[in-house]
Amino acid sequence: MGSNYPRNVRCCLPWWVLAVEAVLVVLFFFFTSYDPSPKDQKMLLGAYQALQDLTIIAALGFGFLTSYLRRHSWSSVAFNLFMLALGVQWAVLLDGFLSQLLPGKVVINLFSVRLATMSAMSVLISAGAVLGRANLAQLSVMVLVEVTAFGTMKLTHKELFNMDDHRSMMHIHVFAAYFGLAVARCLSGSLPKEKKVQAENIEPVTHPSLFSMLGTLFLWMFWPSFNSALLDIANEKKNAVFNTYYALAVSTVTATSVSALNHREGKINMIDIHNAVLAGGVAVGASCHLISTPWIAMVLGLLAGLISIGGARCLSMCLNSVLGIQDHSGVHYTFAFPGLLGGFAYIVLTVLTSSGIAGGMTGYMMLMDIGALSFAMAMGMGSGFLTGLLLKLKIWRAPQMVKHFDDQAFWEFPHLAVGY
Amino acid sequence: MGSNYPRNVRCCLPWWVLAVEAVLVVLFFFFTSYDPSPKDQKMLLGAYQALQDLTIIAALGFGFLTSYLRRHSWSSVAFNLFMLALGVQWAVLLDGFLSQLLPGKVVINLFSVRLATMSAMSVLISAGAVLGRANLAQLSVMVLVEVTAFGTMKLTHKELFNMDDHRSMMHIHVFAAYFGLAVARCLSGSLPKEKKVQAENIEPVTHPSLFSMLGTLFLWMFWPSFNSALLDIANEKKNAVFNTYYALAVSTVTATSVSALNHREGKINMIDIHNAVLAGGVAVGASCHLISTPWIAMVLGLLAGLISIGGARCLSMCLNSVLGIQDHSGVHYTFAFPGLLGGFAYIVLTVLTSSGIAGGMTGYMMLMDIGALSFAMAMGMGSGFLTGLLLKLKIWRAPQMVKHFDDQAFWEFPHLAVGY
Amino acid sequence: MGSNYPRNVRCCLPWWVLAVEAVLVVLFFFFTSYDPSPKDQKMLLGAYQALQDLTIIAALGFGFLTSYLRRHSWSSVAFNLFMLALGVQWAVLLDGFLSQLLPGKVVINLFSVRLATMSAMSVLISAGAVLGRANLAQLSVMVLVEVTAFGTMKLTHKELFNMDDHRSMMHIHVFAAYFGLAVARCLSGSLPKEKKVQAENIEPVTHPSLFSMLGTLFLWMFWPSFNSALLDIANEKKNAVFNTYYALAVSTVTATSVSALNHREGKINMIDIHNAVLAGGVAVGASCHLISTPWIAMVLGLLAGLISIGGARCLSMCLNSVLGIQDHSGVHYTFAFPGLLGGFAYIVLTVLTSSGIAGGMTGYMMLMDIGALSFAMAMGMGSGFLTGLLLKLKIWRAPQMVKHFDDQAFWEFPHLAVGY
Repeated sequence: MGSNYPRNVRCCLPWWVLAVEAVLVVLFFFFTSYDPSPKDQKMLLGAYQALQDLTIIAALGFGFLTSYLRRHSWSSVAFNLFMLALGVQWAVLLDGFLSQLLPGKVVINLFSVRLATMSAMSVLISAGAVLGRANLAQLSVMVLVEVTAFGTMKLTHKELFNMDDHRSMMHIHVFAAYFGLAVARCLSGSLPKEKKVQAENIEPVTHPSLFSMLGTLFLWMFWPSFNSALLDIANEKKNAVFNTYYALAVSTVTATSVSALNHREGKINMIDIHNAVLAGGVAVGASCHLISTPWIAMVLGLLAGLISIGGARCLSMCLNSVLGIQDHSGVHYTFAFPGLLGGFAYIVLTVLTSSGIAGGMTGYMMLMDIGALSFAMAMGMGSGFLTGLLLKLKIWRAPQMVKHFDDQAFWEFPHLAVGY
Repeated sequence: MGSNYPRNVRCCLPWWVLAVEAVLVVLFFFFTSYDPSPKDQKMLLGAYQALQDLTIIAALGFGFLTSYLRRHSWSSVAFNLFMLALGVQWAVLLDGFLSQLLPGKVVINLFSVRLATMSAMSVLISAGAVLGRANLAQLSVMVLVEVTAFGTMKLTHKELFNMDDHRSMMHIHVFAAYFGLAVARCLSGSLPKEKKVQAENIEPVTHPSLFSMLGTLFLWMFWPSFNSALLDIANEKKNAVFNTYYALAVSTVTATSVSALNHREGKINMIDIHNAVLAGGVAVGASCHLISTPWIAMVLGLLAGLISIGGARCLSMCLNSVLGIQDHSGVHYTFAFPGLLGGFAYIVLTVLTSSGIAGGMTGYMMLMDIGALSFAMAMGMGSGFLTGLLLKLKIWRAPQMVKHFDDQAFWEFPHLAVGY
Repeated sequence: MGSNYPRNVRCCLPWWVLAVEAVLVVLFFFFTSYDPSPKDQKMLLGAYQALQDLTIIAALGFGFLTSYLRRHSWSSVAFNLFMLALGVQWAVLLDGFLSQLLPGKVVINLFSVRLATMSAMSVLISAGAVLGRANLAQLSVMVLVEVTAFGTMKLTHKELFNMDDHRSMMHIHVFAAYFGLAVARCLSGSLPKEKKVQAENIEPVTHPSLFSMLGTLFLWMFWPSFNSALLDIANEKKNAVFNTYYALAVSTVTATSVSALNHREGKINMIDIHNAVLAGGVAVGASCHLISTPWIAMVLGLLAGLISIGGARCLSMCLNSVLGIQDHSGVHYTFAFPGLLGGFAYIVLTVLTSSGIAGGMTGYMMLMDIGALSFAMAMGMGSGFLTGLLLKLKIWRAPQMVKHFDDQAFWEFPHLAVGY
């Protein structure tokens, strides 16, 4: 087992990562300072709780969401934490640099750390698509590139499309999903080789599936916190919480029943449940603060559930085999499709509510929104493709195909195969 | 394996559930609106946190609490989420309809969602008793009926017995436990058939037991939030938190040691621990805001621990075999017995503290309290029995006895028996 | 299996624990009362959230952190909850007695329960070192003795070294780690016998490792709450949260890469990850409110990661075999080393920031700080050693060596070995 091991991580990972970490410390030394302004104790409490909720979503939710593969659960959870810890550091710096025109100290406050945690989540979403096929060195490169690309996208949204933080952030699903899929497409290379992946490695098993369900539950429970994290006005925040809650409830009921409808014998697919129950939260994200009555959120949740389960079937049958993408953790139909649905829902809602405004203005706003959505998608795909090409370089010593989805490529086991 | 499968879920579940969901969306369209009153950001924070805690209790705590069976962990967790999502939607509507005499829009605010989540929990408690013996279609019927019955009970408590939300809600344990046991009694039917349940399916196993422990821990940690969720006065809320905390601590210590005392060789029973550590929280529920000194809460916790473990032994030996109830997850001694203890403790406490009031008044109050408790019990049993009869109809195509406690009746597995 | 079972728990545990519990109830009856002062609803919210976070750390984080052993996961989680429940009760009383000179009622408020939860955590840290080698009766004695010793240490810190609650509490890591190691040294006795421990029992396995990772994640996520729990000034609290967050992020990245660097083939060790990602939070604890710029926290996190992984290698090779300590859960390098690093970092930081003050004063402060740190270490070792001797008494009927790390010594299994 050890002989044909590519010695990949040994060669480059530790030194590369330590160097990156050292550079980050130096950058923080020169360019950052804490916000010295006195804070109200109560505001601090609220801000800290919001940050805590996001950390739970990121570290626990996304960590365990992809832990259902037979031999890849350790890597799923631990690499997720690694990417989060690295991504947050770089995102705080980058957001600071991008938000000020003149070079100067980046002031760190609770809001900037919250924003950075959400930016780092883009990497965690994308990582689902390349799950089991990249080593830590590759993932750390992906963290740096994707956080930068996402920061650039947010800056463009702000400057060109005049969007606020919340709306810009809600494109994270589309951006991150297509980024991940583009990277996965590059990494998977020519198709015939794929056969070497050991089939049993990518089977979900019972106990890891329960861990995955745990991740799903944490995402489900804290998704209202995610959707309302960047909203300041109390009424908008309240609406965001409510609408997300209802959309999630309806997409759960829909996903469970449609998943059974999809199977010849009416059995439910566990991976559908993991993913589709979240689709409602994704779909309602962009417009959650605007929707003023629960039934719209419920309809969005229903559509998101249908699209997500439908997507899971169609994609696995045709699209994936044509495009050569292996999307084992369903990033495409968990985040991309409901994200697009959410984008269109936002456009329709703004057009409907702004019926009093002159037609030309409405048309212009619509075009801007469509432009922003397309830009997020294009930026995700483009930067993802470039990252994929970068990660294919021999220098990273990617794990061999036969080692894909196998914890043993990365982890020290007391006795091989005994622990399993 | 597939040949004698009753094709039950396929036939009725998806269309039935989708129809229910569509009706709910339509009802929300016609009858609900968000509370438009501006909210204080800080009040919102507190209200949202309370809702979050209840969601954690419901989705995570109850979901994993019953996940210890060898072949039923997927269903336990996922069906629990499904019932919660469906139950909350119906409970919001129902509570709204019942709380207003004139027909009109139901105004949804954070408090009504909180109340609805707690009402939906009655289903999650009852589901423990019918665990592994009902399919999703049956469970969705049970959700609708039980939330309605529980709403009716709360309305009666309010109108007839003049109880506030908190006290009425604390009858949830007794109501839900006896509802579930009555349903289970109906479903189990004539006893001899029971032998067909495969014995190994109902054995607890190590890793699912850890998941179950996780559920227990979440319930344990957030129980003070549950008991204080409906209290508005800060001092009452504080007392509720304290007393619940102490009662839980004492019942944990008591349950662990008494469980060892109960075994011939002094070994501890894991299922005792899962259940009995919560008994303190249940027992202190009704009176948690009134108790003004910790030792009373501690004594209640001690008694609850003793009753719960004692009940587990006595019930499994005699009562269950006589009544023909199979109570694998211990709903009877986890919720019903400590709930009854809590009801009596409340009565004793009010009598003791109201010694200054004229005797007749005290007696009247006592009678009212006993009446309310008996009504909760009777209503639970009665409506549970009717629901059980309803669920026995052939139309729901319940899983065959041999498929009880078996995930494979409901879930699509990649390769049968490999994942286990 | 049952024949050579020492009948230990049966004989002493239940009656001993019930007696302790009864004494506690009586003590609470005579000596405690709730704080009757009216509370602001919003302050209550903040105080309750802080308590909740600490309970999550204690019950969930520490409970699952040590659950990775093949045959000891039930005991790890359930005994942890037992010790927490018992420890909190005793700590509330003891803290109350020690904080008042004149005998009188101990007033219980949310702050005192918070303090008691943190004091009880000292037992949970120490328990990691004696994991799998003590029965519940022994652990309950350890709870009572260690909480008392820790309370005495805090009192001495306050009276002699003039320290506040926060700084005194941050010596918990050093105190508890050396207490645990001293107890473990006494319990392990003469070395040759150790061979009887079944090697396979102390191997980590995959699914328990995921549970352990879950515990790690909860500790990681809520560590900022731990470090800021006793700070009152909003700005100090904010700094504590930030610095802990950064130190944890950097120690995660460092630990992952250095763990790979340490292995011949670049593979990562899961137990390193469990422990070393927390080292940053421990190291930054003492000085987290003083550090005013993120890079210092990041450097501390980096050093803590290095020390923790380096310590894991050096200790397992030389120190442990020389001293005869079996430190399976890495208490020494997870808590003791980073705790010492944090103590020295605090001293260096105060010396550097107080450069304006006269030299003699600085030197005196430095001596006081070194004295307090040494006292915590000495007190931990001394009281731990005495406790170890106490626990070796035949009266407790400790589990035989061959039963170490084996759940079957304590738990009732449906069918032996089937569940595993």
